[in-house]
Amino acid sequence: METKTVSVNDGVTSGREAAQGSMNGAESLVKTLLACGVDTCFANPGTSEMHFVAALDRIPGMHCVLGLFEGVVTGAADGYARMAGKPAATLLHCGPGLANGLANLHNARRAQTPIVNIIGDQATYHRPFDAPLTADTEGWARPVSVWTRTATSAASVGADAAVAVQAAMGAPGGVASLILPSDVCWDEGGQVAAPLPPLPVPQVSPDAVQNAARVLRSGQSTLIVLAGSALLEGALADAHRIAAATDARLITPMSNARVTRGRGRLAVDRIPYSGDIARTKLAGIRHVVLVGAPPPVTFFAYPGKSPRPYPEDATIHVLARPEQDLGDALARLADELGARKAELPSTAAMTHSPASGAITSEAVAQSLTALLPEQAVVIEESVSFGRAFYPGTAHAAPHDWLQLTGGAIGEGLPLATGAAIAAPGRRVVSLQADGSGMYTLQSLWTMAREKLDVTIVLLANRKYAILLGELAGVGANAGKTALDMLDIGNPDLDWVKLANGMGVEGARATDMDTFNDLFRMANQRKGPFLIELVI
Amino acid sequence: METKTVSVNDGVTSGREAAQGSMNGAESLVKTLLACGVDTCFANPGTSEMHFVAALDRIPGMHCVLGLFEGVVTGAADGYARMAGKPAATLLHCGPGLANGLANLHNARRAQTPIVNIIGDQATYHRPFDAPLTADTEGWARPVSVWTRTATSAASVGADAAVAVQAAMGAPGGVASLILPSDVCWDEGGQVAAPLPPLPVPQVSPDAVQNAARVLRSGQSTLIVLAGSALLEGALADAHRIAAATDARLITPMSNARVTRGRGRLAVDRIPYSGDIARTKLAGIRHVVLVGAPPPVTFFAYPGKSPRPYPEDATIHVLARPEQDLGDALARLADELGARKAELPSTAAMTHSPASGAITSEAVAQSLTALLPEQAVVIEESVSFGRAFYPGTAHAAPHDWLQLTGGAIGEGLPLATGAAIAAPGRRVVSLQADGSGMYTLQSLWTMAREKLDVTIVLLANRKYAILLGELAGVGANAGKTALDMLDIGNPDLDWVKLANGMGVEGARATDMDTFNDLFRMANQRKGPFLIELVI
Repeated sequence: METKTVSVNDGVTSGREAAQGSMNGAESLVKTLLACGVDTCFANPGTSEMHFVAALDRIPGMHCVLGLFEGVVTGAADGYARMAGKPAATLLHCGPGLANGLANLHNARRAQTPIVNIIGDQATYHRPFDAPLTADTEGWARPVSVWTRTATSAASVGADAAVAVQAAMGAPGGVASLILPSDVCWDEGGQVAAPLPPLPVPQVSPDAVQNAARVLRSGQSTLIVLAGSALLEGALADAHRIAAATDARLITPMSNARVTRGRGRLAVDRIPYSGDIARTKLAGIRHVVLVGAPPPVTFFAYPGKSPRPYPEDATIHVLARPEQDLGDALARLADELGARKAELPSTAAMTHSPASGAITSEAVAQSLTALLPEQAVVIEESVSFGRAFYPGTAHAAPHDWLQLTGGAIGEGLPLATGAAIAAPGRRVVSLQADGSGMYTLQSLWTMAREKLDVTIVLLANRKYAILLGELAGVGANAGKTALDMLDIGNPDLDWVKLANGMGVEGARATDMDTFNDLFRMANQRKGPFLIELVI
Repeated sequence: METKTVSVNDGVTSGREAAQGSMNGAESLVKTLLACGVDTCFANPGTSEMHFVAALDRIPGMHCVLGLFEGVVTGAADGYARMAGKPAATLLHCGPGLANGLANLHNARRAQTPIVNIIGDQATYHRPFDAPLTADTEGWARPVSVWTRTATSAASVGADAAVAVQAAMGAPGGVASLILPSDVCWDEGGQVAAPLPPLPVPQVSPDAVQNAARVLRSGQSTLIVLAGSALLEGALADAHRIAAATDARLITPMSNARVTRGRGRLAVDRIPYSGDIARTKLAGIRHVVLVGAPPPVTFFAYPGKSPRPYPEDATIHVLARPEQDLGDALARLADELGARKAELPSTAAMTHSPASGAITSEAVAQSLTALLPEQAVVIEESVSFGRAFYPGTAHAAPHDWLQLTGGAIGEGLPLATGAAIAAPGRRVVSLQADGSGMYTLQSLWTMAREKLDVTIVLLANRKYAILLGELAGVGANAGKTALDMLDIGNPDLDWVKLANGMGVEGARATDMDTFNDLFRMANQRKGPFLIELVI
């Protein structure tokens, strides 16, 4: 994610601002956010935020996007920043409003996404009365945040906001939670703060580069795990140089915030979700070099199985930690190895046509490869049926691929919402399973309201398919009670009606030819369209 | 809420259980819950809960109810226990699954509802690897819980569960959160624990009774605030005796877990939501006697206004704290005062006919009074348009009235779901605003799946009406940006389509006559029906 260059300032108000007359805390907060480049606010406000809402009214420049549930708000802020390279603000209502947004803030934390997470709260002097909505707002915010602060006065909330933006944009980026008591908003004496300089992004040491080079020159089987900003275009080209020069294998974690890929770009595999499949795939690996990734681990433990997807006797080496400059580390390693620019195999002779007939994961991937618009933004939340989507679309038109990164399902539709706002002119394609889609289906309403160019491919298998696999995986027999708890097909969800109910048009496909026609049509229209793919 | 009488036991396994052969931790947990009278489980399970799901399969007796979002699960558990007088279990998936359910657990905490809140989590030895879904499960659970524990072994999880049930059922009741690492479930060596005795419910001291009697005999204007179990039938009759003998005024907090009311029962006003209106209503009060209620406070602070809905110079007296025996305290106070059984004014001559013409809050209340089925369970989540519902339905057929108690919107439909499961044979009538209804609309699917007898009256005003009032209340001018953020009518939600999409039939009413017809019809059919009332 690129960082912005901002002028250096100590974060306190200039004399000019103070001379412009009095403003309340809310106004100083909005003006500071705008000064820091935060011009989009995903919101679900409540009573305690009314002065902030009024300030948004009086001060031009902030695009306010309403979500009908806080999980939409926080997931959209995540998707926005992944594509915009800078944070949006959220606006949430008290502890319970934050709570509703926590799962997608958890995903954002794992994605290292910068978000300025603003949570309105009781007036400072009202909190001791423990009114019904009072909750442990700070306590709930802290586990998902790189920075948490409760504002204490109108005079300092501008400076708080500038620090929040700086903290959110730090390396590797994260959620900065600013809790905003209502009296801090309505009191006069607000002071606009100037942007703070970006926090430094530390470079890796020469030792780390030389150690990785030594491992790669050893001739022993080596895996390079690329994560975070190492998956963006320039860094991937350097990784390609390294792999081509050394026969190292490149791989990414199972779930990534954003990967630039498609025709003309290097295709990098992901570590499979299944530990068994991963260990087979990675058998024989002697060294694992980490670039912005933690040592890989399976999503869950299984009785008697290794928690690691790589051989137990492999040695872990750290080229770069997540908070270091990953692109610089890869470039220096490539230079250290004397690696030359690597060419991609020619794809000029490849032709792609959409699939016909029955709907399978591979058929959908084939049609996506043929029909995906140039510079699409693909949002994937479909672990079970979607197994072929990522490997099968490496030669689609150039695109970005976004996933939920923390395993907290229900982020696909919000990510699509935020990405579409950050990337106007690019088509967003949301590959969405039904079970997880139901978590935050309110996103569809925001897509309709904002007329976002999103094509939702809703994969209706009418069960928690991944859990059926997990139930078998733990060696449990599935009887009626268990199957009922994994079956969401009684009654069937009608996603076309659900979409229509929120102002989004939609249609159903039960074969690939219908899907191809709908997908072509949807991508050419303005605004959202939902295709329910019955699988 | 009534407590169950259980046999006294030290919570460890009897020899007989151990002799029956080995079982895993999950099986011992399910058997212990059943032994403790917990026979309903609201669930949204994930991978880490698969052995628990498998145990539910093998062991008969637990009614498992699936929710497609955790806010449905926790809110339904709240509604269930309010009507059943005993806790249900939840089954949530890891920290983020808990997070999705926190807002309604916050409401349950304020309602003092017993819930055995089970949260599956990473295996004990997998947690240190910080796999993607790993989060601060304990940290998120603690603020809403009266008791939080992470199980550590298969051998002790049965005893943990027995303590959790005891803690949840303690006075005044609350959320007991048991975090369940997956290896605790799958390891052998589970031991079934016997139920623990109920925790004692302390009686109030003679001094507290005599002090309250002294205040009531003083002849000075006195307000008695009744909350919690003081709002159930027997306690209300004693409160009525006291009020009739002393001219004290009875009142309840704005939001209550459950009130038994309707024809033949004492009608008790609520403290108005608006502090201004409340202070006018309570002008002249010299003493406030609390019966299970904290000192009343407004929901929010407003610039320059008192946080108290009663006169600043009134004196607060505590007859009974929430954790004490409220019914006993009221009975003893009535006896101390020598108060005789109070008769209700005769309602025999009253006739009620449904309202005609335009839809207003008062008209809906009139129709509810005429048409509410006997022993209905009414769920109210409509603060703005619903202003006339509660005062206007005091003479409806006898019923229970349930509200969300913590101000975290989005609990109405889940409460209706859980109440319907706890009270088969009684009609549940859900009076639901559209903005809050959208938070947890997935509840409709569970209602269809379980064929619950719920009539949903969906009040579609297509705005966050309460916030328009709040915006004016803080003295803020409403411009386009502000109005947009409070307007959910662009695009309009079509609730009939949303209901149909989840398997619930519905129809729309734009006048009272149509509403009356639909309401009569809906209450006579089996299963759920949604009436979209366009207001």
